[in-house]
Amino acid sequence: MDDKNNLNSALSEKAGISAPEIISATVVQNIQKFRKVQPSATSLVKGILSGNISDLSRAITLVESTNPEHLAKANEVINACLFHANKSVRIGITGVPGVGKSTFIESFGSHLTSLGKKVAVLAVDPSSTISHGSILGDKTRMEELVKDPNAYIRPSASGDTLGGVARKTRETITLCEACGFDTIIIETVGVGQSETAVHSMVDFFLLLKIAGAGDELQGIKRGIMEMADAIVINKADGDNIRKAKLAKTEFNRALHLFPAKKSGWTATTATCSSVTGDGIPEVWETISKFLQLTNDNNYFNNKRVEQNEYWLLETINERLKLNFYNNIEIQALLESTKKAVQKDKISPFAAAQILLEKYFK
Amino acid sequence: MDDKNNLNSALSEKAGISAPEIISATVVQNIQKFRKVQPSATSLVKGILSGNISDLSRAITLVESTNPEHLAKANEVINACLFHANKSVRIGITGVPGVGKSTFIESFGSHLTSLGKKVAVLAVDPSSTISHGSILGDKTRMEELVKDPNAYIRPSASGDTLGGVARKTRETITLCEACGFDTIIIETVGVGQSETAVHSMVDFFLLLKIAGAGDELQGIKRGIMEMADAIVINKADGDNIRKAKLAKTEFNRALHLFPAKKSGWTATTATCSSVTGDGIPEVWETISKFLQLTNDNNYFNNKRVEQNEYWLLETINERLKLNFYNNIEIQALLESTKKAVQKDKISPFAAAQILLEKYFK
Repeated sequence: MDDKNNLNSALSEKAGISAPEIISATVVQNIQKFRKVQPSATSLVKGILSGNISDLSRAITLVESTNPEHLAKANEVINACLFHANKSVRIGITGVPGVGKSTFIESFGSHLTSLGKKVAVLAVDPSSTISHGSILGDKTRMEELVKDPNAYIRPSASGDTLGGVARKTRETITLCEACGFDTIIIETVGVGQSETAVHSMVDFFLLLKIAGAGDELQGIKRGIMEMADAIVINKADGDNIRKAKLAKTEFNRALHLFPAKKSGWTATTATCSSVTGDGIPEVWETISKFLQLTNDNNYFNNKRVEQNEYWLLETINERLKLNFYNNIEIQALLESTKKAVQKDKISPFAAAQILLEKYFK
Repeated sequence: MDDKNNLNSALSEKAGISAPEIISATVVQNIQKFRKVQPSATSLVKGILSGNISDLSRAITLVESTNPEHLAKANEVINACLFHANKSVRIGITGVPGVGKSTFIESFGSHLTSLGKKVAVLAVDPSSTISHGSILGDKTRMEELVKDPNAYIRPSASGDTLGGVARKTRETITLCEACGFDTIIIETVGVGQSETAVHSMVDFFLLLKIAGAGDELQGIKRGIMEMADAIVINKADGDNIRKAKLAKTEFNRALHLFPAKKSGWTATTATCSSVTGDGIPEVWETISKFLQLTNDNNYFNNKRVEQNEYWLLETINERLKLNFYNNIEIQALLESTKKAVQKDKISPFAAAQILLEKYFK
């Protein structure tokens, strides 16, 4: 109050380092108000449907939040976007570290935008919580695509469980599609169960490999080859071309080991170079053929319906388990029960019965 | 009462077709009492531990029962047997119909008993509920083994779920082991998820194949080859020997596609003939080598501990789901929710949330 009175004299000096009163309280309030007022769900939906990238990013941030209020708002936005989504192709890309996923996506994505497509690049990487984004975190590896106005790159959400990370990415797909992106690329690493999660949210699943120094097929994780709709051997340039072609033959042979796919599609093999661009257009041609086939035989739509049901049931099953295993009484009992089972003092089935009786009581 | 009085005269005739009174009521009562009085759990355990096959069969019947009283008694018997079980080798055998599983087990089992082993043959076949026992149901296909005093053959339990059938077989293993059987063979068919269930209860997993008319590897179900510790090509006799040897080479090549096993064991391939007996002793030699290796590196015991934990958690997870999906209110809501999800009216995640809130409330 005293300070305020002193301001009446031009000779008065401010005491100490308190905030300069020259900044009007109204302006500060306005800035704070502006920062606090998040756009409403309706306004976000409107923005997303009109192709506004800022609104898209804001909505994705809500999806990734752990705040229940944000989640409720996210659900509102997603449910409003659902009807406008779904008109896209979703492509999953997997491969172990070092296989050149980022450079491949850079090259492939740029090719797609040159064809007039709008490309969103997302990722499922549950390890990103620890490594702070091991994939897509370093956008500089996609320097062309990141500048492309028809491309949108969003690193993997973080989360404690694969289920949580996968949910966020799955919902981000819906938002991107509603925002007008017609080609969604979802990157994942060849670690853990993340391929299965990605496979359950895409239409086409691409396994990226490189030609190694001998036995190409060693170390391929259980089931990944069976999920692949195409195996593309990257880095087929320079001295590497011959080796890549040999690898292609070997993978082709290996693919015959697996039963025919429900889609009616026969998995293909190809080589490409993300550096020279050789083989990149052919990857899109392969995907186009796949889309033609699966649209004609209706597999495409049936699979999407199945995938939605899968996520419904997966989410339920995961939450049922979380609720049980996070129960404090159960946790205490489970430890001692596990020990008894290990020492053959009680059968696993009798032990399960005891735990379940306690839980349901 | 009248009838009873009439009996006093030797000339009286029985009226109609009522039960002949000449059978003493006491005898009838005794028979009924004998039938009703099941041996106590303690008496069953005593019998099983002394190698009594009738008691073993009675206990297995309790395990297979759906009556809660029987199950409680079964748990009592199993928990008492646990400490005496575990001293055995458990061998899983799978292969599609027509591959000759029964004749192989007949030949292999007889070889084992000739080595002084006591062999129990069990099965996991969830389809048996419908087909009334498609495997091991026809014991005549094992006519030698069925007469062998050192062999015990028990067809697959029936049940609504694989989990239920698997549980019954898993507990039957414990009973057989406590009864002195040191070699347990568990047969399953190459259908559904039953291989995974069997793989999770055995020490050694054997895939039985035959040489076909060309591409041997076609149609091998996802993951089965990766689970196999040995692939044995059956029916390698007469004109078939050459083809079987070629198939062996091809399988051997295919096995290299898979990553190294945690056990340190490299999966083997072999040919055999259940008719001539060629190659049958070698199958046991292979298993012996596996046992030597996995006992030395302690994988054998570690795996059994892991398997017990697996069954503990599997049983819990299955029951959590059953409890949710069998809830009448949930069932009604789930149907309409699924439809809404299919029609993109609600996201699968938002839908799951609604169902879960209802369930936990």
